[in-house]
Amino acid sequence: MNYNELVENIRTKKSFLCIGLDTDIKKIPQHLLSFPDPVFEFNKQIIDATHQYCVAYKPNIAFYESHGASGWLSLQKTLEYIPKNIFTIADAKRGDIGNTSGLYARAFFDKSSSGLYFDSVTVAPYMGKDSVTPFLEFKNKWVILLALTSNSGSSDFQLMQEGNEKLYERVIRTSQTWATHEQMMYVVGATHAEELAIIRKLAPKHFFLVPGVGAQGGSLQEVAKYGMNENCGLLVNSSRNIIYASTEKDFAEAAAIEAKNIKEEMEKILQ
Amino acid sequence: MNYNELVENIRTKKSFLCIGLDTDIKKIPQHLLSFPDPVFEFNKQIIDATHQYCVAYKPNIAFYESHGASGWLSLQKTLEYIPKNIFTIADAKRGDIGNTSGLYARAFFDKSSSGLYFDSVTVAPYMGKDSVTPFLEFKNKWVILLALTSNSGSSDFQLMQEGNEKLYERVIRTSQTWATHEQMMYVVGATHAEELAIIRKLAPKHFFLVPGVGAQGGSLQEVAKYGMNENCGLLVNSSRNIIYASTEKDFAEAAAIEAKNIKEEMEKILQ
Repeated sequence: MNYNELVENIRTKKSFLCIGLDTDIKKIPQHLLSFPDPVFEFNKQIIDATHQYCVAYKPNIAFYESHGASGWLSLQKTLEYIPKNIFTIADAKRGDIGNTSGLYARAFFDKSSSGLYFDSVTVAPYMGKDSVTPFLEFKNKWVILLALTSNSGSSDFQLMQEGNEKLYERVIRTSQTWATHEQMMYVVGATHAEELAIIRKLAPKHFFLVPGVGAQGGSLQEVAKYGMNENCGLLVNSSRNIIYASTEKDFAEAAAIEAKNIKEEMEKILQ
Repeated sequence: MNYNELVENIRTKKSFLCIGLDTDIKKIPQHLLSFPDPVFEFNKQIIDATHQYCVAYKPNIAFYESHGASGWLSLQKTLEYIPKNIFTIADAKRGDIGNTSGLYARAFFDKSSSGLYFDSVTVAPYMGKDSVTPFLEFKNKWVILLALTSNSGSSDFQLMQEGNEKLYERVIRTSQTWATHEQMMYVVGATHAEELAIIRKLAPKHFFLVPGVGAQGGSLQEVAKYGMNENCGLLVNSSRNIIYASTEKDFAEAAAIEAKNIKEEMEKILQ
């Protein structure tokens, strides 16, 4: 999916919601365990119930990889089930030396190689340019680079400062010489709403993938206030608050209600 | 495998060679393509031919993941085929927020979850403490943290400096508060031999995993000169120089000769 299509989808659906398919077999409703592939069955029902409210789905790959080869098959079936007009993010946080990152790109982008064909993949910037650019060789595929993450450990290294520039700022500045806003986004945690304003100045045109926002209108309002640009420029992710809104048989309906609530909040913001 | 066992294996085998199983189906000898799992067949013959000369095997996960679920099965069979007294490294460069890194730990360490049971996994430090510590909860399992890598992009961010400290130095200093040398190693590229001396001062007891050394005695000598400690403290990796020493039917014999040459060089250094 290219930049214009993504922007158009946000306008049409009046939503910039990304739903995280962080599907943990220990947390899904018990009655699904009798299905041949309970993880896929859960995802299928979640997608059926929520796809009208979101513009992106983001499976975190760790949840699938923890089941080895069978997890990869659940992931593949899930990706195939996502409607084609929804942006897909492999939240994989990969990154290796050049030719090896090229193989990760094939893993997530090249259906003929791996069976997967995500629109985008999250990448960790620690190893620098040649660990990122192989992903950019695929047309209409995106790198979503970790900049300032939402976890407690984000302050250990990301805030390191040389002169006036913090590490995450250097990542954003430097990586803009590798790709435009039409092939790169940044991960910016919602726990740093004020910093979003600084980051927006550094990267005025780029989309930000913002994890760490719950159903709370408050933080969504803040993220929009500091992070939005003229084409929205935000994909705000919610995972557990939506997919585990209920752990009973009504989990899909509960997820739909939660997704709809966030979507309606987003619609107001977009007006 | 614990620290003492690893040190003892190095003493017994008179080698600190790690062989990288970066098996690319496009590079393996043609005659293997008729086997049901050519990647596994290649690895099996390489392991048969080289295991007496090395103390560790390191499959880079990208090579397997690029084939999706079937790649994971090749990886699982390869791991099962590696003799039990050889240290195994999942070169995966993972790292995510706490509970998600816990799932990656299960992917690589917990046989009952994923089918895999590596001794160690390489981890990228960008997301900080809570992205690393979940891997340390597994007894006798190791984190090999990226510090100063061997690729050209390593200078983009790893050399960022605050005060007297570079980013990779901060990674080494800070991470030593998370685990001892009995559960953590560092990746230090052989292209930075002089820096090895600085890093050895920062982490006197830790093992370093050193990629980027060829069959050239020269750089191996340099790495040993600057990086060795009283328990050796080095795992020096060679991948392509060994496994693709020949691309014909004699690939395993050629790999054995190459591995033996490096091992004999190491034996002299250890004396």
